[in-house]
Amino acid sequence: MTVAPVNPPARLLMGPGPVNADPRVLRAMSAPLVGQFDPVMTGYMSETQELYRQVFATRNDATLLVDGTSRAGIEAAVVSLVRPGQRVLVPVFGRFGHLLAEIALRAQAEVHTIATEWGQVFTPSAVEEAVARVRPHLVAVVQGDTSTTMNQPLDELGAICARHGALLYTDATASLGGNPFEMDAWGLDAATAGLQKCLSGPSGSAPLSLSEQAVAVVRSRHRVEAGLREEGDDDAPDPVLSNYFDLGQVLDYWGPRRLNHHTEATSMLYAARECARVLLDEGRDQVVARHARAGAAMLAGVRGLGLGVFGDVAHKMHNIVAVEIPAGVDGDGVRAALLHDYGIEIGTSFGPLHGRVWRIGTMGVNARRDAVLTTLAALEQVLRRAGARVPHGGGVDAAAEVYGDAA
Amino acid sequence: MTVAPVNPPARLLMGPGPVNADPRVLRAMSAPLVGQFDPVMTGYMSETQELYRQVFATRNDATLLVDGTSRAGIEAAVVSLVRPGQRVLVPVFGRFGHLLAEIALRAQAEVHTIATEWGQVFTPSAVEEAVARVRPHLVAVVQGDTSTTMNQPLDELGAICARHGALLYTDATASLGGNPFEMDAWGLDAATAGLQKCLSGPSGSAPLSLSEQAVAVVRSRHRVEAGLREEGDDDAPDPVLSNYFDLGQVLDYWGPRRLNHHTEATSMLYAARECARVLLDEGRDQVVARHARAGAAMLAGVRGLGLGVFGDVAHKMHNIVAVEIPAGVDGDGVRAALLHDYGIEIGTSFGPLHGRVWRIGTMGVNARRDAVLTTLAALEQVLRRAGARVPHGGGVDAAAEVYGDAA
Repeated sequence: MTVAPVNPPARLLMGPGPVNADPRVLRAMSAPLVGQFDPVMTGYMSETQELYRQVFATRNDATLLVDGTSRAGIEAAVVSLVRPGQRVLVPVFGRFGHLLAEIALRAQAEVHTIATEWGQVFTPSAVEEAVARVRPHLVAVVQGDTSTTMNQPLDELGAICARHGALLYTDATASLGGNPFEMDAWGLDAATAGLQKCLSGPSGSAPLSLSEQAVAVVRSRHRVEAGLREEGDDDAPDPVLSNYFDLGQVLDYWGPRRLNHHTEATSMLYAARECARVLLDEGRDQVVARHARAGAAMLAGVRGLGLGVFGDVAHKMHNIVAVEIPAGVDGDGVRAALLHDYGIEIGTSFGPLHGRVWRIGTMGVNARRDAVLTTLAALEQVLRRAGARVPHGGGVDAAAEVYGDAA
Repeated sequence: MTVAPVNPPARLLMGPGPVNADPRVLRAMSAPLVGQFDPVMTGYMSETQELYRQVFATRNDATLLVDGTSRAGIEAAVVSLVRPGQRVLVPVFGRFGHLLAEIALRAQAEVHTIATEWGQVFTPSAVEEAVARVRPHLVAVVQGDTSTTMNQPLDELGAICARHGALLYTDATASLGGNPFEMDAWGLDAATAGLQKCLSGPSGSAPLSLSEQAVAVVRSRHRVEAGLREEGDDDAPDPVLSNYFDLGQVLDYWGPRRLNHHTEATSMLYAARECARVLLDEGRDQVVARHARAGAAMLAGVRGLGLGVFGDVAHKMHNIVAVEIPAGVDGDGVRAALLHDYGIEIGTSFGPLHGRVWRIGTMGVNARRDAVLTTLAALEQVLRRAGARVPHGGGVDAAAEVYGDAA
C-alpha cells in the first residue's frame, strides 16, 4: 500500500471535542526535537510546569504532564493515589463518572457510587452525606461531564473531604479553561485534564497536579525502577500497580533528580506548553469569559431556532450544550449534512441520551462569535431541508444579541 | 511568568534516542485536526494500521497505536496478556530487560529472569532451557537494548516458545526499522515499538501488533467499559488491571465497532503514519541497509580514532555503538563540549556502564554519511582538546572508507 501525506479537509469542530487546535499550537509541534536531558528540554519542562500551575490556579510543585490522552491522566491519578482495597467514592452524573468508577475498580479499589439523574449535578450536602457514610480514602468526581453537559460545583467539596479525611480528585478534562477552576482555593488534592477541549490542542497530553497531601501518598508507595535503583533508594513493599502511571517515578523524572522514566513526548510537550502559553497570554479570566459568552450565544441561538435544551441549564458548562433533536428529524442525518455541506462537526451522544440530543461545543479557539454564528446559520439551513419548521434567522439573531450587536 | 513560543536550537542528535525527527514527520504534525469519528480520521487510522503491518512484517489484523511513549506500549502488551499469578520469563541483557521484569511484576505476574553479562546476548538454547524449566505463559524479551547496544537474535525464539506453549513478546522500540524484524516469520505473538529511534519521529506513540493467539487471550478478558456496556456485551470476571491499557477495549476502538475509548491523539497519529509512510517509501530493506552502513561507518570511525568498543560487536544493533571513554578523559566534559561547540548530542550510559562508555547512535534520519562524518570530525577535535591522543582524520577516513570513498 502506498499513501500520500496527511491532508485533512477543512473542518469547523463544534462538537464535544476534540475541537480545532490553535494554529500556534500546531506550529509549535513542528519545531525540531532536542535531546531528552538537553538543558533546553528540561528548561521547557520546568516552564511547562509553571504555566500549568497558573492554568490550574495552584502552587503545587507536583504539576506536570502525563504522556497520554486525558484518560491516561485520570488513571495515573487514581492508580497512584489508591491502594487495592481502599474505598473510593464516585458521584456519577454522566458517562465519565462511570469511567472514574471503572478505572478505580480496575485499580482494585472498593468503589462506591452515588448517582443523580442525567442532566443534574449533586448538591454539596448529597456529597457530604455519602462521604460520611462511605468514609472513602478518595472522592473522585468529574467537573464537567460532556455526556450531559453538566458542570459539577466543586467549591465546597474540598472542605467536605477535608472534614472527613478524604482526598479529593477531579477530572477537569472537558471544563478546564472554559469554566472557573481554582485548585488551591477549592481544596483539591488532584486534578487532571487534556488539551483537546478548551485548551485548543490535540489529544495526547494530560496536565496533572497533586497537592502536598497527595504527593505524600504517592511517596509512601515509592519504588525506584529496578534497572535504576541504587543503594538507599526507596523500595516500598506496595508499589503502584503500574510503572507507566507511577506518579512517584514520573515526579522523579520531572523533578531535580531527573531520573529517567519514559522518554518525554517532545512534540506533545511543545503543544501542551503552547496551549498554556496562549491561554495565559489572553488571560485566564478572559478566556473563561469568552467561553461564557460564546456558550450563552449558542444557547440563545439554538433556542432562537425553536430547539429545546437538555438538562439543568443553570449548571451546564459554558462550552457545550445538549440540543434536543426535534420530533421527526433524523439526528444522524442532520450531523452528516452539516459535515458534508458545511464542513461543520457537531456531536452525537451516549447512553440514555443517544438519539435524543446533539451536543454542540463552543470551546477553545472555537469559542468565538463567527464560529457560533456560522454554526447556527448552517444548522438552520440543514434543519429546514430536514423538514423542521425553523424561524428564519432566529438562531443567528438571538446569538448576535448576546454579543450585543446585530448579526 | 510569560514565556516565548518554543524555539529550540539546532541539534544533531547522535545519542540513543530521541533522534532528530524527519522534517516530513514534523510537518505532518502541524496539519489541522479532524473529529474523532470523522471518516477522514477513521480512514487515517485504518491506513496507519496497514502501514505498521508492513513495518512489523505481519498480517496481524490487531496492529494499532497505543497513545503514549514506547513504555506505554510495553505495559499495554504485558498487562493485557498476563493475568495476575501467571509466570513470565524475562531474559535480561540490559536495563530494558529489567524494565520488562518490573512492568510484569507490577502486573502481578510471577516473574522469572535469566541474566547474561552486559554486552552479550542469549543463545537460543539458553532461552529454551529456561522456558522448559519455568514453563512461562509469556516470554518477554527486548530485541535491541540501547543500554548495552546488543541486538538479541529472535529468529529461533518463536519456535521455542511455540514448542513449550508460551507466548512470545518483544520490545522492539530501539531496533525496529534499523535492524531486521520479521514478526510473522519469527513467530512473535506481540511486539511494540516507539517512534523516537529508527522511525524518525517524536516520542509519544507506540505501534503495537498482536498475533491471533495473543488476541484470543485479550478477548478472554474482555469487558466493555461501564458507561458504554449494553445487553449482551462482554463482561469478563477478570478484566485487565488497567482501563487505558486494556487492549480489548483499544481493539474495539480501532476495529469496526469504533467503540469510544480514549480520544485518539490526532497529531501523534499523523506523526506515526508519516514515520511509517516515509520508511516504506524508501523501502524496509533499504532502510535497514542504510542503518547497517551508517553503523558500520561509525564503528570503523570510532576505532579509527583509537577508541575501544564495548560488548559483543557481532551482535550489536546497527544503530548504536558503545564507545569506551579513554583513561583520563572526562566523559561528561566531552559530551558537554560536543553539545556546546558543535550542537551534537551523544549519550551517557546506565548502570554498570555508567561513566565507562558513551553511546553514539546512527538512527532514523541521522543514519546517513554526513551525520556520521560530522560527528567523528567533531569528536576528534573535542578529544584532542580533552588531552587524548587521537590520530588526525583517523575517524573520518575510516568511516568514509566504509562508504567506499574518500572523505
